[in-house]
Amino acid sequence: MSINPAFLAALEKQIAQEFILTTPQACWPYGTDSTQRFFMPQAVVFPKTHEDVVFITALCNEYEVSMVPRGLGSGAVGGAVPIQEGIVVCLLRMQDILTIDTANRVMIAEPGVTNFAIQQALYDKGLFWAPDPGSREFCSLGGNLAHNSSGPRAIKYGTVRENTLGLTAVTGAGDTITTGAYTSKSVVGYDLTRLLIGSEGTLATITQATLKLLPLPSRQMTVRALYRSITGATQAVTQIMGQAELPFALEFMDKTTVNLVRQYGGIELPHDVQALLLIGIDGNEHSINDALAIISAAAKNPDLMSIEVAHSQQQADQLWQARRRLSPCLRHVAPKKINEDIVVPVSRIPDLITGLEKLSAHYGIVIVSFGHAGNGNIHVNLMYDPANEKQATQIDQCLQDVFSLVLALKGSLSGEHGIGLAKQAFFSQEIDPNSLHLMRQIKAIFDPKGILNPGKIFPV
Amino acid sequence: MSINPAFLAALEKQIAQEFILTTPQACWPYGTDSTQRFFMPQAVVFPKTHEDVVFITALCNEYEVSMVPRGLGSGAVGGAVPIQEGIVVCLLRMQDILTIDTANRVMIAEPGVTNFAIQQALYDKGLFWAPDPGSREFCSLGGNLAHNSSGPRAIKYGTVRENTLGLTAVTGAGDTITTGAYTSKSVVGYDLTRLLIGSEGTLATITQATLKLLPLPSRQMTVRALYRSITGATQAVTQIMGQAELPFALEFMDKTTVNLVRQYGGIELPHDVQALLLIGIDGNEHSINDALAIISAAAKNPDLMSIEVAHSQQQADQLWQARRRLSPCLRHVAPKKINEDIVVPVSRIPDLITGLEKLSAHYGIVIVSFGHAGNGNIHVNLMYDPANEKQATQIDQCLQDVFSLVLALKGSLSGEHGIGLAKQAFFSQEIDPNSLHLMRQIKAIFDPKGILNPGKIFPV
Repeated sequence: MSINPAFLAALEKQIAQEFILTTPQACWPYGTDSTQRFFMPQAVVFPKTHEDVVFITALCNEYEVSMVPRGLGSGAVGGAVPIQEGIVVCLLRMQDILTIDTANRVMIAEPGVTNFAIQQALYDKGLFWAPDPGSREFCSLGGNLAHNSSGPRAIKYGTVRENTLGLTAVTGAGDTITTGAYTSKSVVGYDLTRLLIGSEGTLATITQATLKLLPLPSRQMTVRALYRSITGATQAVTQIMGQAELPFALEFMDKTTVNLVRQYGGIELPHDVQALLLIGIDGNEHSINDALAIISAAAKNPDLMSIEVAHSQQQADQLWQARRRLSPCLRHVAPKKINEDIVVPVSRIPDLITGLEKLSAHYGIVIVSFGHAGNGNIHVNLMYDPANEKQATQIDQCLQDVFSLVLALKGSLSGEHGIGLAKQAFFSQEIDPNSLHLMRQIKAIFDPKGILNPGKIFPV
Repeated sequence: MSINPAFLAALEKQIAQEFILTTPQACWPYGTDSTQRFFMPQAVVFPKTHEDVVFITALCNEYEVSMVPRGLGSGAVGGAVPIQEGIVVCLLRMQDILTIDTANRVMIAEPGVTNFAIQQALYDKGLFWAPDPGSREFCSLGGNLAHNSSGPRAIKYGTVRENTLGLTAVTGAGDTITTGAYTSKSVVGYDLTRLLIGSEGTLATITQATLKLLPLPSRQMTVRALYRSITGATQAVTQIMGQAELPFALEFMDKTTVNLVRQYGGIELPHDVQALLLIGIDGNEHSINDALAIISAAAKNPDLMSIEVAHSQQQADQLWQARRRLSPCLRHVAPKKINEDIVVPVSRIPDLITGLEKLSAHYGIVIVSFGHAGNGNIHVNLMYDPANEKQATQIDQCLQDVFSLVLALKGSLSGEHGIGLAKQAFFSQEIDPNSLHLMRQIKAIFDPKGILNPGKIFPV
């Protein structure tokens, strides 16, 4: 159905026509995200200001049109896909960095700015914002906030939640709220900042964020450790995370991933490598060598084949780039993948990997695992061919078994992708009924007409 | 009015009589906190288990009796004072540490355990929980969670919010919820964990907390820097916080505080010291000396009189003990104090101190300032004599001027004490009306009958 003309006419009073898309051809790219789920938006609107968002939200309430906030659409769970008729509110025109306050280490930025642009703006000032998803070049701040998407550095520097001081947002009801503070401590009323972070655009549209910045350590090193067994690598993870000198990143890759790195990343690796750890270490000129010695010692066990520091910046960049491109590379393994960013306690990673191997053997489905091992946040990819009837019929059961395994290990269904559409059927396996009921009521408070990103997160 | 006998009889079906206090003499100590506000509870109940709390809450709903959760009562804003007739639910029998999982750095503990007992249980395992309020020996975990009370180490290691993974709690409606996860990353539904943290016992009674632990650095140093001017000290704070090597504590003391330390802490200090910084530095055997050199360099400016490392553990302990005892020591300055834990951006501390000096001169009221300068979290104490008519009539206006100053500097009314009764009249100066409305609605969801710690936080 096409959009209500009266709604459209009203919209054009605030938003110039050129920033409203209504034809299917123009709207098409805004109907999907990296899950490739697709629903055609009735229109796509590009607000420029907070007031625009207020106006759009008020109008959507008045006409009962649903609205889905969206950035660059790199989300991995269908969070920005407009499953109900309505509009997509694309925030990419709101990408200003409004303040960089170096003395207080605070940045104020709009949701459409990419994570990478944030880091670049800070680099010369010797600062960084800790969250740093693999997709940093094509993911926007709004999405990082919506899904609490944090990437590798969370093991040392925390997630979005720990690195955001406050937000300006427009609730589903159309009300402007300013949450949190400009300071690193504040306890004045309920924590609405963190209630919005991770709420996947279902409570409010974030129009501005106050970010807590950290001083960039003057030195970084990249270390590559190769293991002749998976358990050798996972045991090293537990050892490294069990001592005081934390790396800023501790990425795990299984054998299939190592093969991808070798084939498509152009990196030479011995043929008998079963697992690889990519370790990022930072510090100052004096402390970094100590950190290296301590972390290297923790990484050692009988199954370690080699451990070496990248000998040049180029080699280090090559390793990290290979890591960041793993997700798109997976299409070379099988036509389709289900990518789950589950989390388990670090000490249970060996049990997770063993369990996944059993499931893979049982279902005849290749399971590729890599990810932020320091947080126990493993990206588990179920690779399958929809044309293979046996795989196609069993994939759902296999996925359920993966989640059951994760929860049995005291884990969590998602570490940084969120629930969106992809995991809502499994939501109640982790969240108790009373909490679910409270969350639904909170949703109703922020968005009484249910116009904001409807049909997401909660079980249908 | 005494308690409803039918309610009491029902209560005794679950809670043994010896754990229910009903006489005024017995209830008396549970009617106050460190603000010395006093309201007599109708009864005090000591639950032992989560199920006890569920039972008590259900009963309070049934009989419409209000209940105020409470730990050791060290709170600084009247948060645990039972201002409406009803019962106090004292959680001190629930003080078990249930799990210390060293491999995953997680502790599960009950709300009645003291912060100090937590730290002691972890010390031998080389771990710590970052929050560490000055009152750590006589404040309980439940209170730390309720007010997000974090103490000095927050500047390097974060507040309660950043160091708590999950909670088990009983909502005001009597429903059990289990929030968060056992892992350091998780994005599954709305963040109820942080919604409860800092909610001052108005949404739910916390019965268990899953705490994120950190590895204890192997070395610590205490450094004392003396300044001949306040601005010298505050500028040093900005310098220290503006570089990458962060101290774990950075405490500021003004001249009056220095005098207290000299007089009652038994510490010799030159007579012309105008301000003191107490700096805690940690690291490993190799890195700590680098950190010391870097931080000492940042602390230097023309107004630095001396900077020295405590030469013995005894001297270091003496300094920290003097710092922790400042609050009770203030009674030597004036009969009464209003202690406000305001926060300003670190770079605005000099403006804050200058502004406070002006207010002090204008009102003729001594204002004593000390606290967690690294977070801009300064404990501002308005010292006055209620018998002095001029002071007594002007103290409220002076306090309002302090808060106006703080908000003009982009600060926040409370860094770790919370709002309770003490600041509810000022709440709306910081929180916008839409946010306040949302918070009130959230309160109504969690506690539909309004039985849980009524009359707190929000403006009356």
